[in-house]
Amino acid sequence: MRRCDELAECTEEPGRITRRFMTEAMRSAQHRLGGWMRDAGLSVTRDHAGNLIGRRDPGAGDQRLLVGSHIDTVPGAGRYDGVLGVLIGVAVAESLGSQPLPIGLDVLAFSEEEGVRFSKPYLGSSAVAGCFAPEWLDRRDDKDGSLRDALRTFGCDPARLEDAAYDPEQVIGYVEPHLEQGPVLERADSPVGVVSGIVGQSRLRIEFLGESGHAGTTPMAGRRDALLTASRFVVAVRDTAESCEGLHATAGRMEITPNAPNVIPERVELSLDVRHPCDTDRNTAVTRLVGAGQSLAEADGCRFRVLENTAQPAVRVDRAITDRLAESITRCGGEPLRLSSGAGHDAVVMAKRFPSAMLFVRHPGGVSHHPDERVEEADVAVAIRVLRDLVVRVAADAAGVQPAEASR
Amino acid sequence: MRRCDELAECTEEPGRITRRFMTEAMRSAQHRLGGWMRDAGLSVTRDHAGNLIGRRDPGAGDQRLLVGSHIDTVPGAGRYDGVLGVLIGVAVAESLGSQPLPIGLDVLAFSEEEGVRFSKPYLGSSAVAGCFAPEWLDRRDDKDGSLRDALRTFGCDPARLEDAAYDPEQVIGYVEPHLEQGPVLERADSPVGVVSGIVGQSRLRIEFLGESGHAGTTPMAGRRDALLTASRFVVAVRDTAESCEGLHATAGRMEITPNAPNVIPERVELSLDVRHPCDTDRNTAVTRLVGAGQSLAEADGCRFRVLENTAQPAVRVDRAITDRLAESITRCGGEPLRLSSGAGHDAVVMAKRFPSAMLFVRHPGGVSHHPDERVEEADVAVAIRVLRDLVVRVAADAAGVQPAEASR
Repeated sequence: MRRCDELAECTEEPGRITRRFMTEAMRSAQHRLGGWMRDAGLSVTRDHAGNLIGRRDPGAGDQRLLVGSHIDTVPGAGRYDGVLGVLIGVAVAESLGSQPLPIGLDVLAFSEEEGVRFSKPYLGSSAVAGCFAPEWLDRRDDKDGSLRDALRTFGCDPARLEDAAYDPEQVIGYVEPHLEQGPVLERADSPVGVVSGIVGQSRLRIEFLGESGHAGTTPMAGRRDALLTASRFVVAVRDTAESCEGLHATAGRMEITPNAPNVIPERVELSLDVRHPCDTDRNTAVTRLVGAGQSLAEADGCRFRVLENTAQPAVRVDRAITDRLAESITRCGGEPLRLSSGAGHDAVVMAKRFPSAMLFVRHPGGVSHHPDERVEEADVAVAIRVLRDLVVRVAADAAGVQPAEASR
Repeated sequence: MRRCDELAECTEEPGRITRRFMTEAMRSAQHRLGGWMRDAGLSVTRDHAGNLIGRRDPGAGDQRLLVGSHIDTVPGAGRYDGVLGVLIGVAVAESLGSQPLPIGLDVLAFSEEEGVRFSKPYLGSSAVAGCFAPEWLDRRDDKDGSLRDALRTFGCDPARLEDAAYDPEQVIGYVEPHLEQGPVLERADSPVGVVSGIVGQSRLRIEFLGESGHAGTTPMAGRRDALLTASRFVVAVRDTAESCEGLHATAGRMEITPNAPNVIPERVELSLDVRHPCDTDRNTAVTRLVGAGQSLAEADGCRFRVLENTAQPAVRVDRAITDRLAESITRCGGEPLRLSSGAGHDAVVMAKRFPSAMLFVRHPGGVSHHPDERVEEADVAVAIRVLRDLVVRVAADAAGVQPAEASR
């Protein structure tokens, strides 16, 4: 907890936490984090994507388990998103001490996940997963030049980015501990939970086009009020979401034209965010919602258009490691609650290449990307015990021996 | 129609019609209008509020009927709002020629109705009705100084504003012909209609306060989505309006916070415009809508607040003149359709002091305060005949004789 507070001091903006990819704030955070990694007996390196890596030398073979998350933040962030997962990994390494293990343990602190500086998320994990597209190097941020320049300024060699990729043959798996960023564990009174998958997401922009008119002189009958139709649609979105288990559907943004008190709204553009762990269910919901919008518009004499409809499929976690993680929770005396992740994480990218799993930590209040982000020390302690148990058992699996009872 | 086109050329902005109170564009419009008034046999004066007045000298007594409207415009206006009523008055005077009448006829071109330059409408008619508040002279526009200065620059004497007021003892009534600014006459296929009253208006600003959250991680159950509740409210507003004859209720403006696609809306502020010819019905509707907002908010776990609630009562037209006007429509071969005015007009102020009535002219398309504002020449001809008939009959009333059949 104290380390989370300390890293919060590494910021680009005094008074709030903003730590983007390859900034001096990131350098300062890596400096402190590297010290703690070394204290935990890890050997510290930095790859050419700017990821900081603490390695526990394998006692035997070159099989290794990866644990980690990211240390960049959104502007005005909380102190736990990303950082907590990395520090849990360091704490696990620390608690293992000099105990010999037949596998290696690498604690990864990804340099970029939030996508703030170059409008492209998962830069760090993409390099580790070997799927960093070279053209991303030409992306530019608002004022400071290209991603390539940013890496160079930080001391990385963009030409050697490929060296950051792990050989999948050597990776047993990737486990990411992370703040839940939602209220499921809090409501279930569970300190930790196992992620059953990362939901797929559809993003739509929808337009309702009616006819403007004077609010005082246009009779109610025959009005084609785009805001009325959009409002009916927002209600339909909620009804649809409530009728489909696991579906999240949100209209979060709405622009109204002309948006004047005495003029009937002519046009409304709204955003629709639809997520579900199952891509088929998500697609069915999107089709149903588009149909509902169309019908409501027709009934109100408005025009309906889908201006944009992009999607990102659901991410499957590795069943074996995830089951192992659930067993570790049971061994540590907890209920292995399974929940899907509604947000993206480095595991989205890592899962493309490595068997991946996620451990969620209870998030009191559920407020994320905000200074009010909180976590309980006792829950973090549980997460450390669970992850330590997992590491020991995965190591035992690799050596073919039965591990001892988990420490409680 | 040609004169409307000509006045449209008197503008502050090339390419569109903008003619505010006491501008050079107004001076130029008054110059042309004054010429047409003189051609119609009227003697032209300007009062100290900048109103242009064309007087037909009374044959007997000093009783006079006032006919008119305003010649200022909103920015980017159409060519008929206000102007049409004044020019119909001039045309009536012209058509009367030298026919002796026992009453006077004054055609009034009010200098200000739209409230654009000094954010205060009805300046011209307020002076004529004797209710111009002296403190208005201190109002300032965005850049050019005070209303007092504007009058002086135009050649008016602010100290003599009171001289503009008519003696109610001498005024038989005020009749304002005006574009409907709505579709009622068009739908009824009527060239003209009689205004039964000017609706009262309530303006509310309403707030729904929920709780923001991540669109992907916050379960649907337990969300407090301010936009959802506001949407339910917009639907309730329409349902309420449709269940109460004569009620106009419009949510025209909505501001959403934070208004981001992946964040549950925390706060919505919306405008509510409620109008009805009967103040009691309007107040009942407002109470009902506020109650509905409160209930919907409670059901969704949101907070509800009325941030602002101001009202302007309905304006009654004079029954005798209005009935006379309806008779004139019948005498000219039409159906005297009665409709309420959903917008304010100079008659709002004139009715405080003088028996007042309004004659609406069909408005094809119903688009007002916009360059697309249209009117049919044939409908204007009907309006001139109807108003001429009214003037002749009111004059006959005053002399105690029976007028001849209306000319068709």
